[in-house]
Amino acid sequence: MTTSIKHRVIIETTAEQLFTALSTGNGVASWWAPTKATDNLSKGDQLDILFGPNGEHVVGMQVIESNPSQSVVWKCVSGPWENTDCFSFDIEADPLGVALTFENSGWQAQDDFYAHCNAKWGFFLAVSLKNLLEIGSGQAHPMDPNI
Amino acid sequence: MTTSIKHRVIIETTAEQLFTALSTGNGVASWWAPTKATDNLSKGDQLDILFGPNGEHVVGMQVIESNPSQSVVWKCVSGPWENTDCFSFDIEADPLGVALTFENSGWQAQDDFYAHCNAKWGFFLAVSLKNLLEIGSGQAHPMDPNI
Repeated sequence: MTTSIKHRVIIETTAEQLFTALSTGNGVASWWAPTKATDNLSKGDQLDILFGPNGEHVVGMQVIESNPSQSVVWKCVSGPWENTDCFSFDIEADPLGVALTFENSGWQAQDDFYAHCNAKWGFFLAVSLKNLLEIGSGQAHPMDPNI
Repeated sequence: MTTSIKHRVIIETTAEQLFTALSTGNGVASWWAPTKATDNLSKGDQLDILFGPNGEHVVGMQVIESNPSQSVVWKCVSGPWENTDCFSFDIEADPLGVALTFENSGWQAQDDFYAHCNAKWGFFLAVSLKNLLEIGSGQAHPMDPNI
């Protein structure tokens, strides 16, 4: 029996714009953390995320699925989330714009690291990604709260 | 088998100041949402939280435990979280200040409402409560992100 980190946020944007923020290196770097990739991320591509003040902690994600305006799925192939399952982003229409459901499944327990990552995802999705798409600027790592 | 909303955040403050923000009506109103109570909340006290643009949605919480500088536990007695178990806030020392672990247990499933509330708690704890204690101002409802 495993558990997930799961969030759902309403964003006043279009499915196309949200998908771009999730499926390009520059998009991901604008709300989550610096990336090595800059352009379109297709199925099978590697997405290296650079954490730490100087980007010294490289986390490798692989794009497992990418369905324009609908969904993106990543798997962590190297780094602290290797032992979890996928990271999925599902986009649905909403009266205010779009509803994004995020799930990082396969956690063994709701331990301290889970609770830390869960709070961080709340910030990145409800604040950084939402602000990027609604007002034009996110708050990507290392500008995220030091929690 | 139930699941929890669980977050952990580091805040650069003291256990005493964090406890005050969790155990007074004015404190809770400064980072979560307006309250009817203003002063100290002791075990057994009712804490009415006012949601909606004009505070028209009253959610009743009851203080189940209150241990100065250590922990606070609430139970929702009327409102949308009646069917969940407690809301617990546990304070521990951390090299940077304090570590706050929040848990709202007793959710039947990680459904859309769970995922919405989870994102909101991420904001209220990692941004609003943290900023209240570190820079002096929170972002309580209805100034929270419309997600």
